[in-house]
Amino acid sequence: MIQKIRNIVETTDSRAGVVFDLLVQLFIVISIIVFSLETIPTLSKEFIEVLLKLEVFIVSLFCCEYVLRFFVAKRKTKFVFSFWGMVDLLAILPFFLLSFDLIMIRALRLLRLFRILKLGRYSSSMSRIMSALKIAKEDLVLSLMAALIMLLVASFGIYQFENTAQPDKFSSVFDSLWWALATLTTVGYGDVYPITAGGKIFTGFILVIGLGVVAVPAGIIASALTEVRQK
Amino acid sequence: MIQKIRNIVETTDSRAGVVFDLLVQLFIVISIIVFSLETIPTLSKEFIEVLLKLEVFIVSLFCCEYVLRFFVAKRKTKFVFSFWGMVDLLAILPFFLLSFDLIMIRALRLLRLFRILKLGRYSSSMSRIMSALKIAKEDLVLSLMAALIMLLVASFGIYQFENTAQPDKFSSVFDSLWWALATLTTVGYGDVYPITAGGKIFTGFILVIGLGVVAVPAGIIASALTEVRQK
Amino acid sequence: MIQKIRNIVETTDSRAGVVFDLLVQLFIVISIIVFSLETIPTLSKEFIEVLLKLEVFIVSLFCCEYVLRFFVAKRKTKFVFSFWGMVDLLAILPFFLLSFDLIMIRALRLLRLFRILKLGRYSSSMSRIMSALKIAKEDLVLSLMAALIMLLVASFGIYQFENTAQPDKFSSVFDSLWWALATLTTVGYGDVYPITAGGKIFTGFILVIGLGVVAVPAGIIASALTEVRQK
Amino acid sequence: MIQKIRNIVETTDSRAGVVFDLLVQLFIVISIIVFSLETIPTLSKEFIEVLLKLEVFIVSLFCCEYVLRFFVAKRKTKFVFSFWGMVDLLAILPFFLLSFDLIMIRALRLLRLFRILKLGRYSSSMSRIMSALKIAKEDLVLSLMAALIMLLVASFGIYQFENTAQPDKFSSVFDSLWWALATLTTVGYGDVYPITAGGKIFTGFILVIGLGVVAVPAGIIASALTEVRQK
Repeated sequence: MIQKIRNIVETTDSRAGVVFDLLVQLFIVISIIVFSLETIPTLSKEFIEVLLKLEVFIVSLFCCEYVLRFFVAKRKTKFVFSFWGMVDLLAILPFFLLSFDLIMIRALRLLRLFRILKLGRYSSSMSRIMSALKIAKEDLVLSLMAALIMLLVASFGIYQFENTAQPDKFSSVFDSLWWALATLTTVGYGDVYPITAGGKIFTGFILVIGLGVVAVPAGIIASALTEVRQK
Repeated sequence: MIQKIRNIVETTDSRAGVVFDLLVQLFIVISIIVFSLETIPTLSKEFIEVLLKLEVFIVSLFCCEYVLRFFVAKRKTKFVFSFWGMVDLLAILPFFLLSFDLIMIRALRLLRLFRILKLGRYSSSMSRIMSALKIAKEDLVLSLMAALIMLLVASFGIYQFENTAQPDKFSSVFDSLWWALATLTTVGYGDVYPITAGGKIFTGFILVIGLGVVAVPAGIIASALTEVRQK
Repeated sequence: MIQKIRNIVETTDSRAGVVFDLLVQLFIVISIIVFSLETIPTLSKEFIEVLLKLEVFIVSLFCCEYVLRFFVAKRKTKFVFSFWGMVDLLAILPFFLLSFDLIMIRALRLLRLFRILKLGRYSSSMSRIMSALKIAKEDLVLSLMAALIMLLVASFGIYQFENTAQPDKFSSVFDSLWWALATLTTVGYGDVYPITAGGKIFTGFILVIGLGVVAVPAGIIASALTEVRQK
Repeated sequence: MIQKIRNIVETTDSRAGVVFDLLVQLFIVISIIVFSLETIPTLSKEFIEVLLKLEVFIVSLFCCEYVLRFFVAKRKTKFVFSFWGMVDLLAILPFFLLSFDLIMIRALRLLRLFRILKLGRYSSSMSRIMSALKIAKEDLVLSLMAALIMLLVASFGIYQFENTAQPDKFSSVFDSLWWALATLTTVGYGDVYPITAGGKIFTGFILVIGLGVVAVPAGIIASALTEVRQK
């Protein structure tokens, strides 16, 4: 009997297992919608009450699910301290610890959405991307390091050029880092930008080199995926 | 006789078929230009009248075309409920239903432009790209899912950091979602951006991870195209 | 004798030919710097005079070069009406036709810079990129078409959503087209952006699809280059 | 004895060599954090004093390291004038030349961070990326040239269109160049953008061609990496 329930809860081999997984996913999506709606500041009292009731209902379901997963787990402690075990616990905990109601911990439920990727069709896709990322791991870490050093170089450089001209916007290297981030990722909000000739020329050099640094990871992933596909 | 007309209308094998198709395309382009011009608020009355007459003329042509396509279709109901049959109908319908004159439905005519891609030279190109997309379909759906979860994580996170500091700009998770969209796609309009130190640091992490998520689809398409080319 | 000069002027096989070519390139660069400087509105009179004299000097050199090229050309008319012959002529003409002094025609000299790519080391690189682009030509034209249709769809859609809310910024489909261009290329100046909920959701869909359309050309070029390299 | 110290200082073959290298890296990171903090304008006097003492301590360590490296170097002059020798010297020099305290020269210490990439695991990754860049070097230089010419064409073009309408923002070709840079890299701060119809249409063409020019380097790197991986 326990074996049967374990199969349903832990695997997606049987029809019942897939249905169970999809139901859990559905309730995660609903719970995310519910507490997204709760953040709207102009809601009517009646609607808030409905949302709170829904929240209580869903968290109860999640509690049942957690207890069920704990119950069927072969090694109880291993489950509790596993990654998904922690995520599941954190997803229901903030409801009980009202004084510690950080939305970010609630948002951990979002992580549970990733479980959907384990379902049938996408599992081969998932393993392909994963093995490509594993092949390219060190190359990616390297380019991330280069990107970080690039970010720092850009921040120090622009600080030198712009601090005197815009002491409020480039007040320290940390403010400059924010500029460097928004610029090298090409987001460019437009809240801070260089106004001196030197700062603009420096930005030009940084962008030409920096976009190269950004183009490398895309190339790394493409070539790793090509390698995985050819096997 | 019907067979001949069918060949002209439905295929581009014969010279007459290509001419028919190009003529239809031409009128689609003209009709798009015409109703683009109609949206300009400072037109003179005379010009508007000319445009309206042109519109009537083109829609009449489209009606003839629809009737012709219906007439030559082997299975009438199948044609009416086929994708292109629906598009063709929707492209002429709003003209008659004046009370339902949504520009978006008129804009469906734009979809008919895609038919040009079926013409001669581009058909092998088209099928190559299509088979690459088919190979990469599941990988792309996976990365789209990852991108959507990323968007949600970013919205919940930034809401936590910025809601207190900018209650008007990050008033709910939905407003934060707009920020997350503009940031992770690197559009960065600059209408909303984090101002707290925590929000800026969070944005940094989100961007570094998020741009990786965005680089993966490009790599997927590149490797799929490489595979298709090598066959 | 003429044969010798022809070799120097038209080819870069000999040492003298390379020197001639580099000298011409140098003067093009100088002339570009000179008329860039001329556009600065706050120059002193003395400096402007120096620049004008330099301009006269360089244009005289270009005239000599043009005459020389005409003189050594085997087929005179073919040279005059060839692409580079036209560019060379247009590069000196605006100086004499003072009433027609468009900077854009002067800027045609920039095109002459491309000639530097014919020099030794880069010619194999050039031919590799060129043959990759030739292989990928139809795929690229196709994605360009798809991108253009996407741009039009985005403009019509956003017009529908935003015209009522921001009649000054989205006053016609053409204004919306400017927004669509800045958004789909992820430039995002921030001069126009949607403010209605509908417009923002529409932007979300357009961006997710649109960035896919933009990712395809990068993949096409990568796979074509891979193919060229493997030969 | 000297041989032993040389091994520790110059190579990472032995355990001691790795520890030495990591310690140096650690102090570089600390020194960067220290002088980042020093740029914050609102620090208390006590904290500034602590930072200055830390700075003195770290620079002393760097001096010792430099002397040590000089001492163990086989060819003294070669070390002093080598790239890393110069960087090491410049990293400590500004501390003694107080009148010449440019933060950018201090920031040269950032370059020393790149040494971490020589450590064990990443060295094969590093050499792979390096050989890919070497393969693609000429292609990349070519596309960089094309990008630069593109930038110039964009600047001259937009100057022609916008100078009359916005004489303060597009006052010279150099101001236009700043716009071209922010636009073609898709940063789009929003401090300068075209407002005339002509300028907007021109921007459209420039962006469509320009983003192609930007997509080529990514493709070049991807195909070069694929080639390196297949060997």
